[in-house]
Amino acid sequence: MIVVLRPGLKQDEIQKVVQRIEGFGLRAHISEGKERTIIGAIGDERLLADQSLESFPGVEKVLPILKPYKLVSREFQKANTIINVNGQKIGGKKIHVMAGPCSVESREQVLESAIPVKEAGATFLRGGAFKPRTSPYSFQGLGEEGLGHLARAREITGLPIITEVLDPRDLEVVCEYSDILQVGARNMQNFKLLTEVGKLDKPVMLKRGMSATIQEFLLSAEYIATEGNRKIILCERGIRTYEVETRNTLDLSAVPVLKQLTHLPVFVDPSHGTGRWDLVAPMALAGIAAGADGLLIEVHSHPELALSDGPQSLKPEKFAAMMQELKRVAEAVGREL
Amino acid sequence: MIVVLRPGLKQDEIQKVVQRIEGFGLRAHISEGKERTIIGAIGDERLLADQSLESFPGVEKVLPILKPYKLVSREFQKANTIINVNGQKIGGKKIHVMAGPCSVESREQVLESAIPVKEAGATFLRGGAFKPRTSPYSFQGLGEEGLGHLARAREITGLPIITEVLDPRDLEVVCEYSDILQVGARNMQNFKLLTEVGKLDKPVMLKRGMSATIQEFLLSAEYIATEGNRKIILCERGIRTYEVETRNTLDLSAVPVLKQLTHLPVFVDPSHGTGRWDLVAPMALAGIAAGADGLLIEVHSHPELALSDGPQSLKPEKFAAMMQELKRVAEAVGREL
Amino acid sequence: MIVVLRPGLKQDEIQKVVQRIEGFGLRAHISEGKERTIIGAIGDERLLADQSLESFPGVEKVLPILKPYKLVSREFQKANTIINVNGQKIGGKKIHVMAGPCSVESREQVLESAIPVKEAGATFLRGGAFKPRTSPYSFQGLGEEGLGHLARAREITGLPIITEVLDPRDLEVVCEYSDILQVGARNMQNFKLLTEVGKLDKPVMLKRGMSATIQEFLLSAEYIATEGNRKIILCERGIRTYEVETRNTLDLSAVPVLKQLTHLPVFVDPSHGTGRWDLVAPMALAGIAAGADGLLIEVHSHPELALSDGPQSLKPEKFAAMMQELKRVAEAVGREL
Amino acid sequence: MIVVLRPGLKQDEIQKVVQRIEGFGLRAHISEGKERTIIGAIGDERLLADQSLESFPGVEKVLPILKPYKLVSREFQKANTIINVNGQKIGGKKIHVMAGPCSVESREQVLESAIPVKEAGATFLRGGAFKPRTSPYSFQGLGEEGLGHLARAREITGLPIITEVLDPRDLEVVCEYSDILQVGARNMQNFKLLTEVGKLDKPVMLKRGMSATIQEFLLSAEYIATEGNRKIILCERGIRTYEVETRNTLDLSAVPVLKQLTHLPVFVDPSHGTGRWDLVAPMALAGIAAGADGLLIEVHSHPELALSDGPQSLKPEKFAAMMQELKRVAEAVGREL
Repeated sequence: MIVVLRPGLKQDEIQKVVQRIEGFGLRAHISEGKERTIIGAIGDERLLADQSLESFPGVEKVLPILKPYKLVSREFQKANTIINVNGQKIGGKKIHVMAGPCSVESREQVLESAIPVKEAGATFLRGGAFKPRTSPYSFQGLGEEGLGHLARAREITGLPIITEVLDPRDLEVVCEYSDILQVGARNMQNFKLLTEVGKLDKPVMLKRGMSATIQEFLLSAEYIATEGNRKIILCERGIRTYEVETRNTLDLSAVPVLKQLTHLPVFVDPSHGTGRWDLVAPMALAGIAAGADGLLIEVHSHPELALSDGPQSLKPEKFAAMMQELKRVAEAVGREL
Repeated sequence: MIVVLRPGLKQDEIQKVVQRIEGFGLRAHISEGKERTIIGAIGDERLLADQSLESFPGVEKVLPILKPYKLVSREFQKANTIINVNGQKIGGKKIHVMAGPCSVESREQVLESAIPVKEAGATFLRGGAFKPRTSPYSFQGLGEEGLGHLARAREITGLPIITEVLDPRDLEVVCEYSDILQVGARNMQNFKLLTEVGKLDKPVMLKRGMSATIQEFLLSAEYIATEGNRKIILCERGIRTYEVETRNTLDLSAVPVLKQLTHLPVFVDPSHGTGRWDLVAPMALAGIAAGADGLLIEVHSHPELALSDGPQSLKPEKFAAMMQELKRVAEAVGREL
Repeated sequence: MIVVLRPGLKQDEIQKVVQRIEGFGLRAHISEGKERTIIGAIGDERLLADQSLESFPGVEKVLPILKPYKLVSREFQKANTIINVNGQKIGGKKIHVMAGPCSVESREQVLESAIPVKEAGATFLRGGAFKPRTSPYSFQGLGEEGLGHLARAREITGLPIITEVLDPRDLEVVCEYSDILQVGARNMQNFKLLTEVGKLDKPVMLKRGMSATIQEFLLSAEYIATEGNRKIILCERGIRTYEVETRNTLDLSAVPVLKQLTHLPVFVDPSHGTGRWDLVAPMALAGIAAGADGLLIEVHSHPELALSDGPQSLKPEKFAAMMQELKRVAEAVGREL
Repeated sequence: MIVVLRPGLKQDEIQKVVQRIEGFGLRAHISEGKERTIIGAIGDERLLADQSLESFPGVEKVLPILKPYKLVSREFQKANTIINVNGQKIGGKKIHVMAGPCSVESREQVLESAIPVKEAGATFLRGGAFKPRTSPYSFQGLGEEGLGHLARAREITGLPIITEVLDPRDLEVVCEYSDILQVGARNMQNFKLLTEVGKLDKPVMLKRGMSATIQEFLLSAEYIATEGNRKIILCERGIRTYEVETRNTLDLSAVPVLKQLTHLPVFVDPSHGTGRWDLVAPMALAGIAAGADGLLIEVHSHPELALSDGPQSLKPEKFAAMMQELKRVAEAVGREL
C-alpha cells in the first residue's frame, strides 16, 4: 500500500502516519520526491484495508498494491479448480452447457425443455423456482412445487439441476433438490446469503452483479470461500451500461480477465447478457472463443407464452442448432463440448 | 401498451397477436402505418407486463405507455405522504437531517457523534450495527450489541434511531431497537427482505441501488407498499458511473424526478453519494436546493480511526458549520431546518 | 411515432396536437385508452424527429416507431455491402485483419511491424500519423512525414494502408497516401469531418464513440452516406463503463446487433477495446465468433518502447500465433481468413 | 510514479526497469515488500506519461502520483481565474447566467428570448448558429446568418454573446461576432480545434464531454492553456449513464471537485444536463448551491415550435421566476446574482 502525502507536510505529521501504519504491524518506508512524499506500507496490506488512512490528516490518497482477495486468487492456487458434480467435471477441458427454462411453470413445461436440451448435448438442467422479479406484480415462481418438477425432470433425463436461492431461510429446501445452487446477480452482495452458502458442501454458481466490478465479484466469491466452500463457479451475465439495444452489455473481456485472476471456473450467460434470443447464439460462440468453461442458456418450448424472459429464450430447435456450432468453435480453441 | 409489428406480416399472424392481447381482457386497436402496423393494447397493461409479447412471432417491439408501479405513484395519491416518527414529521415543510457514524463501534463512539449532531440540529441518529461490507475481511458490525449502544444514545439525546437491516432473520431484533428501518443500496432488490419489511408497521428508508433506474427504485418501493407498509422514505445515494474522482455519482436530478413521480418523501445521502467528506457539505446544500426532504450524513468524531467509511465522515464541528449553511439554503427555497 | 397525452386533456388541446402532426403531412390517428389517450402519427416520422412535440402542452412523451437512419439500414438495402479496396473485398466471406503500430514513429519501426504482419496473414497495414492524444504533453504523431513512412511500407509489403484523419484541413494529404480513411472514436460526432469524408470516393472506417449508442453510431454513418460515400466500415472499439480492469468494455454484442440493423461491414478493435495486449487474442477470437467481418490490431516490435499504446500492442510473434487460432475459429463459423 | 513489479523478478530484470526510468532523468527508488517489489520514479513523472512502462517485461502496473495537467491546476495557480468579458467578471462573487435559445432560428426568435432574459437578469446571450446534430436530417443551424441575428440582439440588449464553434475553418467568422467561444461536449476531445482556440485571445467555454472523466476534461483545458489562452470557463453539462428518465445525468459533484482541482471558473448547464424543462430550475438552484460560478440556460419563447431542444427550453416567464429563486439561493451561499 502506497500512502501519498499532501505537499508541505511537517515532519511530526509524517511521523503520525508512520506510527499509524506501524501500529498494524507493517513497516513504513518513506520516499521523498520532488513534489510529493510517499510512504510504502510493507506487509499484509489487507490488515489496513479497513483502516481509514485516507482520512488521516495530511494523507492525499492511498494506492493499494495487492489484490484484496486471497483464497480465490490465482496467486493462492495456480491450478484450475475442477468441480465434480455427479461425475461431470466443471472447469476442465470439457465445456458444459446448462440449459432450461427461466422459470419453472409446470411439470410439462420443464420436460418440454429438459428432454430436447439433453438430446442436444446440455449436461445440466437450469430452471428457477424462486424468482427475483423487478415488479411485485410479476410471476414470483412456484417455490418448492417448482423444485419438485425439476427433480422429476432430473429423474427422467439424468441431468443434474442448477437452481437459484434467494433467501437464507430457503437454503435447506433448495439444497434438498438441487445439485448446484445459484446465487443471482441481484444477490451478489447479499453477504448473509453468501456466508450461509459458504458453510455448505454444495457447488455454487455466483453470478456477477449488474454493476459489480470484477474485483467486487471476486470479493463476493471470497465471502463464500472463507466459510469453507471452495466449489464456486463464476458467471458473467452482462453489466449495466447506457446501451439500450441489449438488456445488458455482456462483458466478455471479463472471461480472460477472470481466468488470469482466479482459479475458479468461469461461465457466460448470453441469455441475460443480451436479453434477446437472436443474440444468444453469436454471444455463446463468442463466450467460448473468449475462453469460458461453460454456458447458461434459457430454453423454452413456447417463448411467447413464457411467464418470464420469453424474449431471451431459445426454442429447442434453435438451441440444438447452436450446439452444433458451439462444438466446432470449442474444438477450434482446443476444448470439447 | 403499443405493440409494433414487423413489416410484411400476414393478416392471420396479426390476428394471433390480437387474440393474445384480448385473452388478457384488453382491447386491441390496430393502426396501419406506411412502414409499420401497430396495435394499441387498451386497458390495464400491467396485466401484460409479464407476458412475453416481445417474443411473439411477428412482434418487433413493445412500448409501454403506463408506469408499472401504482401505489407509490403520484397519480395514485396526489398529496405528499407525511410520515410521523415519534412526533417528527417527515415529508413536510421541515427538512430532517439524520446523522451519526457509519458503523457503531462502541458506546462512547456513538455518543461522541450523537450528542454534537443533536446540538447542531439533527433530528435522527443514524448508525450501522449490521454492516454490508464488500470484503469478508472488513469489520462486519457489532450486531445486537451495536443496537444496544444506539438505544442508549437515544435515551441520552432523545434522537430516534435509523439503522440498517440486512437479513429477514434479523428483522425482529432490529425492529425492537430502531425507529426507522434502513434497507441499503445492495438490498434494494432483495425482494424477500422488501416483502418482510412491507408486512411491518414501521417506517422504512429504502436506498437506491447502485445501478438501479428510477423505475426499478419505485418498483422496489411498490414491493413494500403492496404488502401494506406505506411509510416509505426514498433515498438517493449515488449511482455507479465511470467517474473515479468520486466513489459514486450523486444523481441529484433524481430528486425532482422522484418528487414528480411519487408522493413519498425523498432524501439524499451525500456521504455515500460522493465518498469524500470534503464534498459532503456542497452536495448536501445542492440536495436541499434540488428539493430533497432530508439528508443522511455520516459523522465521526475521529474519521481517521473509523472502522468504516472514514474518508466520507464529517467531524462534528464541520457538521455543525454545514447545518448553519443548510438552514440558509432551506429558507431560500421555502423550507425550514 | 406515438404521442402519449397527459391524462385529463381537453378536446381542443388534443386537436392542437393533431393539427401540429398534420401540419407536417402526417396522418394523426387517435386512440383513447382507459388511462391515457395516444395519437399515432402515420407517415415518415423522420419529418417530425426535430419537431419538439415533447414540449407541446399536454404531451407526456413521444415514442418513435421507426429507425431514424435510412441509407445505412438493412431495411433500405438487404444485401451486405462489399467494399473493394485494391482487390481486397471487405464484407464478404473473407475476414480481414488490419494490423500495425498505434503510432508511426519511424520508417524502420513501421517496417518492423509491417513485414511480419503481412507474413502472418494481415491484409491491411494500420498506423497513425495524426494522433488524437488525451494529453497535450503526449506524442502527437509525425504528421505527413509519418504518412510517407506508411507509403514506403506499402511499397515494400503490398499492404494497403488505413490511417486516421482528425481535421477536415488534413483530408487532402491523408487521402493522397491512404487507402482507407479512419475516423476515430473521438471524432464519431465531429459532424463537419463526417460531412467532408462523405463527399469523397474513398473507403472510410468509422469507429464507435466511447459512449455512443448503436443508434448514434449508425446516424453518424448516415451522415457520411447522405453525402454520397457508401463505402463505410463500422468498428466496435469498446465503450466506457465503470469497470477498471480493462481500458474500455468491448461490446461484442454490438456485432450481431449491427449485422441485423445495417448492411455495412462490421469490424472489432480488441486492442483499444481492452487496452491490454494479453486480452487481445481471446477478444479477437470472440469477435470473429460473434460475426465480425474483420479486426483492427495493434502490433509493435518493441511495445515497451512504443510512443503510444504500448500496453495494448502485440509483439509480431504473438500476433502470428493469434492468426493461427483465428484461422481455426473463422473456419468453425463458416468464414475464412 | 510507482512501478509495481511482478513477483519473482530477477535482479537484472529489475535493473532494466531502473535504467529505463533513469534514462528519462528521474531517480528510481526501490522498495522491497513481502509480496511485491516496487520502484518509485522520482521527478517530473509527466516525462514518463507516454512511455509504455506498463508493457515493460516484469512490470505489473504503474500508479501515477501526480496530476497529468499543470497550467490549469490549483497547485499551479492558487487564486481563482477571473475572466473579464466586456466588463462582466466571470469567476468572482457574482454568478452569471447565460441564457437564450438552443438554435438561432430567426432575428425575431432571438429577440423574443434575448429581451426577456436580459430583463430577468441574465448577463450573456447564448444561441447556436453552427449546430452539432446527432442526425443528418436535423436542422443544422443558420451559420453566419445566425451569427448576424445574435449580433443584432447584442446591439439591442447590450448582452455579450456566447456561441459554439464546431470547425477550425469557422473560427474566424465565429470570433468576429462572438464574445465567448463555446466548444461543445462532442468536441471536448477535438484536439485540433482546442489547439486553434488556444491560440486566440478570446474567452472560451469548454463543455465536458458526454463520457469524459474530470481528469480528461482538465487535460482538454490544458490543451487550450498550453497554446497561450488562459481565459477558459469549464461547464458541466451532464454525463451519460444508464438512467433514462433524464437525457443525461447532471454530475453536480463535479462542481466542488473542479473548484478544488482548478482555478478556472465552473459553470453548470441544467438544460442539457437533464433534457427536461421541468427539471431545469431545481438543478440550476442545486448547481449554485454546489458552488458553480454560473449557469447556461436554454430559453425559447415557443418551445413547442423550437427547431432543436424544445423539451429542455424554458419559457421566458418560467426563466424569470427561476431567476428570483436563484437570487435567494445565491445569497444563502454568499454569492450574488
